[in-house]
Amino acid sequence: MDQQLRDYLLHNREKQLTELKKFLAIPSISALPSYKVEMRKAAHWTAEMMKDIGLDRVDIFTGKGHPIVYGEWMKAEGKPTVLVYGHYDVQPVDPVELWESPPFEAEIRDNKLYARGASDDKGQVFMHLKAVETILKTRDTLPVNIKFLIEGEEEIGSPTLPSFVEKNKELLKADVLVISDTTLLERGKPAIVYGLRGLCGIQIDVRGAASDLHSGLYGGAVQNPIHALVEILSTMRADNGVITVEGFYDKVRKLTEEERAEFASLGQSEENLKTQLGVPDLHGEEGFTALERMWARPTLEVNGIYGGFQGEGIKTVIPSEAHAKITCRLVPDQDPQEIADLLEEHVKKAAPAGVTVSVSQFDKGAPFITPFDHPAIQTAGQAYEEVYGVPTAYVRGGGSIPIVAAFSEILSIPVVMMGFGLSNENFHAPNEHFNLENFDKGLEVIIRYLFKLSNGL
Amino acid sequence: MDQQLRDYLLHNREKQLTELKKFLAIPSISALPSYKVEMRKAAHWTAEMMKDIGLDRVDIFTGKGHPIVYGEWMKAEGKPTVLVYGHYDVQPVDPVELWESPPFEAEIRDNKLYARGASDDKGQVFMHLKAVETILKTRDTLPVNIKFLIEGEEEIGSPTLPSFVEKNKELLKADVLVISDTTLLERGKPAIVYGLRGLCGIQIDVRGAASDLHSGLYGGAVQNPIHALVEILSTMRADNGVITVEGFYDKVRKLTEEERAEFASLGQSEENLKTQLGVPDLHGEEGFTALERMWARPTLEVNGIYGGFQGEGIKTVIPSEAHAKITCRLVPDQDPQEIADLLEEHVKKAAPAGVTVSVSQFDKGAPFITPFDHPAIQTAGQAYEEVYGVPTAYVRGGGSIPIVAAFSEILSIPVVMMGFGLSNENFHAPNEHFNLENFDKGLEVIIRYLFKLSNGL
Repeated sequence: MDQQLRDYLLHNREKQLTELKKFLAIPSISALPSYKVEMRKAAHWTAEMMKDIGLDRVDIFTGKGHPIVYGEWMKAEGKPTVLVYGHYDVQPVDPVELWESPPFEAEIRDNKLYARGASDDKGQVFMHLKAVETILKTRDTLPVNIKFLIEGEEEIGSPTLPSFVEKNKELLKADVLVISDTTLLERGKPAIVYGLRGLCGIQIDVRGAASDLHSGLYGGAVQNPIHALVEILSTMRADNGVITVEGFYDKVRKLTEEERAEFASLGQSEENLKTQLGVPDLHGEEGFTALERMWARPTLEVNGIYGGFQGEGIKTVIPSEAHAKITCRLVPDQDPQEIADLLEEHVKKAAPAGVTVSVSQFDKGAPFITPFDHPAIQTAGQAYEEVYGVPTAYVRGGGSIPIVAAFSEILSIPVVMMGFGLSNENFHAPNEHFNLENFDKGLEVIIRYLFKLSNGL
Repeated sequence: MDQQLRDYLLHNREKQLTELKKFLAIPSISALPSYKVEMRKAAHWTAEMMKDIGLDRVDIFTGKGHPIVYGEWMKAEGKPTVLVYGHYDVQPVDPVELWESPPFEAEIRDNKLYARGASDDKGQVFMHLKAVETILKTRDTLPVNIKFLIEGEEEIGSPTLPSFVEKNKELLKADVLVISDTTLLERGKPAIVYGLRGLCGIQIDVRGAASDLHSGLYGGAVQNPIHALVEILSTMRADNGVITVEGFYDKVRKLTEEERAEFASLGQSEENLKTQLGVPDLHGEEGFTALERMWARPTLEVNGIYGGFQGEGIKTVIPSEAHAKITCRLVPDQDPQEIADLLEEHVKKAAPAGVTVSVSQFDKGAPFITPFDHPAIQTAGQAYEEVYGVPTAYVRGGGSIPIVAAFSEILSIPVVMMGFGLSNENFHAPNEHFNLENFDKGLEVIIRYLFKLSNGL
């Protein structure tokens, strides 16, 4: 990165942090209806900032949900187009008494910026805007075309975004989608998330007698819904964690040898994980490391089970109902609807006599992957390495961000998740903060990445 | 029964019902601490009545619990001694607004006496007192020796009675224990309960990670306590209801051919039971009728299961804990402690890796049986038959009344449970009542029984 860009960053650092603090001062909590005005304020702030930095088209789209802010600069003819996605909404701040400084009065302590949204995701959105500003203000042009799509509903599950993306495919057309809403592997070690798991789930409701029965009077005569449920669940997963629902693994994409080598190279200690989680032992499918199981293997977990008496002591009842909630984390190329249907079918087949069993399906999210040897990802990895001085980790996420899969499906472009947070920065918790070391380095990474992308994908 | 006794009953019926109404007017609710004075009042009423009818020793024993009332008449030298057990305490009356007449203002409608305690158990205790009165007042003597033990804590599980019985073995020494606190098989069909099931149980607590985990971030790496619990439970009972805990059936006393024939002769319809309970099908061990399974086979039921998320919708959590409460109904000659230990041992063996499993045991109660061909029972059956004009049903109860087993064990005497209630008389519910048809017939049955016992046991 040349001196001119470096100087711009240096000279504008204080100003930028002051601006970011103003952005962070807007309590844009998407989950709370009473913050609707603040949401609009944050959207406007974002739009104004897009104009300030020199984008030449800025729009606020309003509809059923919170406003979506769009901005673009499209004058780099013949060059790739980068779409940056992020969100200006934040999580609620309760319990507010646990904050050491007020959540909407950003404060820097020990080179860390404390405020709700500092890392998730206002801080990281702001970095992309400032990276573009830095180049535009020093060069009067950009090495690539750029589009920003900043929404206000990420923390409530992005209910309106997929249909917006679907309707505005042409507007959002790009060669790569860049998202900064994840974390480094650890301090000093950059990481790109190139895959996420998907999600589907079912609820099983087992019903027996019309009402709870006295286990003395009727025990032995009727099926107990809890036992029926246990029987069903025991057919779904083997002791070793292998899922025994027929067809479940049919479409699972195998880990490549390169991926396994990459994961192994991260040096994550299973002993540490065990200690961190406080479990007597790790547990799961044989033949896979814990990391492989968390990132690249599907799961089936009972998230909740309930039926009958839950109080202190004893109540000798045969309950009339028992329930279980099950979700599966899915990996490419499993289809959430297909798996949910397999689960439902399995449960219905496994249902024992003497009870009625019904199944309902939960919302679904597709898994996502951009192979990590894709140029869009490898180029980002190089930009990281030049700034942080260590190899970039190519990782997959065990969780599900349905909107990422939706982007990847609707727009059919590679997705590069290059985050600058740290996993101990308390997103969604009191005292959220952002280490400014990664603010400074991140700005440089983004600028380098945009220049590198100029050479094509 | 001779005319003199018959006349006494006839001439005193109104007076007796008036007395019973006074007994029923005392709100002796043992479960509610604020009714302590009323409890004492009911105990005194009982003691006074014992004196009135001519018993020659009456005592009220007070200790930690509600008073125990004892009375005896022991002048029938060389004759058997009958111990009558009953209780003067009653259930709470909530929801009181559902009562058609006030619960403590007894009212006769359609030859049924409505009041809390009318059938359970003041009405039935009163009948025994009045049977004795009838004989004593007309004959000046009794055909047998008689002892009454009327407690005030039956509805709260008789916490202090076993130790009282243990301490007063000599005082309570008798040849037969008679309890009237059960029901006829149905209207017009007398029944003697000659066996009850016992009870033991355990709670299983499964613990995994130190706190709930995000199923996306950690799913696949750790054991899920719910799955571990399901795995354990699935090894305890087979699909067909057979309990698969090693040694569980070892001491189960087989049903005799006579018992099976007796049960079959009762003409209980499984189709009716199915409809009554609202289940799609009855369910249980093959080779046994529903009645046999409910009365004479042991059970293992999960009475409650809970872990993880129970709200609406979905929460993708791997819970840190899961719990199950299990109780077993036991039959002669299973030992509750032995079975609880077998369960505990089984669970510990079945516990999968990756979680810690602990087991705690609940209170226990022994099963009880007095073989139904015992003279004490057959003689009672004859008395019933002479009055009701139909054969007596010899039945077993699926429930557990630990105090009965305690009596039977401590005093080593046959127990005759000859009840006069009807199963639709709302014990423990609003509008409890007692059909006076069975008050009148019951008095005659008891009188006849006492005379028959005079011939020896």
